[in-house]
Amino acid sequence: MNIAVLGTGMVGNTIGTKLVHGGHKVKMGSRTAANEKAAAWVTSNGANASQGTFDEAAKFAEVVINCTSGIGAIDALTAAGKENLNGKIIIDISNPLDFSKGMPPSLTICNTDSLGELIQRTFPEAKVVKTLNTLTCLLMVNPLLVPGDHNIFVSGNDASAKSAVKNYLHDWFGWKGENIIDLGDITTARGTEQLLPIWVRLYGLFQNPIFNFKIVIGPAPKM
Amino acid sequence: MNIAVLGTGMVGNTIGTKLVHGGHKVKMGSRTAANEKAAAWVTSNGANASQGTFDEAAKFAEVVINCTSGIGAIDALTAAGKENLNGKIIIDISNPLDFSKGMPPSLTICNTDSLGELIQRTFPEAKVVKTLNTLTCLLMVNPLLVPGDHNIFVSGNDASAKSAVKNYLHDWFGWKGENIIDLGDITTARGTEQLLPIWVRLYGLFQNPIFNFKIVIGPAPKM
Repeated sequence: MNIAVLGTGMVGNTIGTKLVHGGHKVKMGSRTAANEKAAAWVTSNGANASQGTFDEAAKFAEVVINCTSGIGAIDALTAAGKENLNGKIIIDISNPLDFSKGMPPSLTICNTDSLGELIQRTFPEAKVVKTLNTLTCLLMVNPLLVPGDHNIFVSGNDASAKSAVKNYLHDWFGWKGENIIDLGDITTARGTEQLLPIWVRLYGLFQNPIFNFKIVIGPAPKM
Repeated sequence: MNIAVLGTGMVGNTIGTKLVHGGHKVKMGSRTAANEKAAAWVTSNGANASQGTFDEAAKFAEVVINCTSGIGAIDALTAAGKENLNGKIIIDISNPLDFSKGMPPSLTICNTDSLGELIQRTFPEAKVVKTLNTLTCLLMVNPLLVPGDHNIFVSGNDASAKSAVKNYLHDWFGWKGENIIDLGDITTARGTEQLLPIWVRLYGLFQNPIFNFKIVIGPAPKM
């Protein structure tokens, strides 16, 4: 499959590398066609790896993965171009973290809105599926790094897009279907984006990013 | 121990009942000394159960448990009286949920502040420990309702108060020490209060409140 990875940071790098190793053609998108980090990634990932502007990457792709920082997400997708996104699935992994006031970061958008919703509103003809934003990228592409079952979430308005993304999560990265929780429409991204404040604190406590949330359930009470 | 339970709702009722059954003397506090829900609770819980105003309950207690709705928390604690709270541990179970705009609720305070912090700022000489606000009250007092290990969190500025509360959580309700995660100072309550948006969605999905978050960890990556 032809896939665009928008963003040249650790998340884009890790996701892109895993996808290339899985036999996909990946174009890493950035602001400029000659981005140095993207060039280094292409060099180390062989013939199925390429780079381009956000616009070129989105044009190339059947599926677009937003791996930009949350603050840069709308600009990056705007540069990618509505005409290149319409009708396509955007897998949104970004979080609206604001590090400008130091640690821990706050959220630039939360509570009654979310970055997932903002992206869906800005690109109404794209199919935004928010997922994987609740764990480190090392674990996104290799859930077995944490022993046993643990959960990721999907949020989105388009049922068939969410269904396709659940299959991608399984086929690309090894996530078991039963560990992927469909929370509902894109407004449920408020819930997963607001997991970040505790994620950041747990990371500070453990000094290890390899952890995740597992939802454990008991029998329903008799009413 | 003499314990004040502020609030006559399901949380206060469940916590108060468990504590009375554990041999503690519990005074349920509310706005008026003759609150009907508190009276019914006293009637069904015997000689160790009593009721009173917020002020009377706080005066009576060695430890105060805030089981009010988040929106009512500051008013209730103000009515309880600074002079009755100073130097005491306030176990804050409340969440700043706003149901006034329908479901799902939003948060009245979040991101760069939290209700736990607001309570600590308002009552600087009390020792606020935020905990148990991330699960249903049925599970707060009976962690075995969900099989296996799962986690709760404590947030607070006073290390000895957190240590005491961890012991209470074990002795009163059966929480294993290793399942209680000390996130840090009271600002970490932002993280646990912001778990509510996903909690509410998961509850809607499962139609069963008996679930919890378990933090699962893998080996740290080699750097």
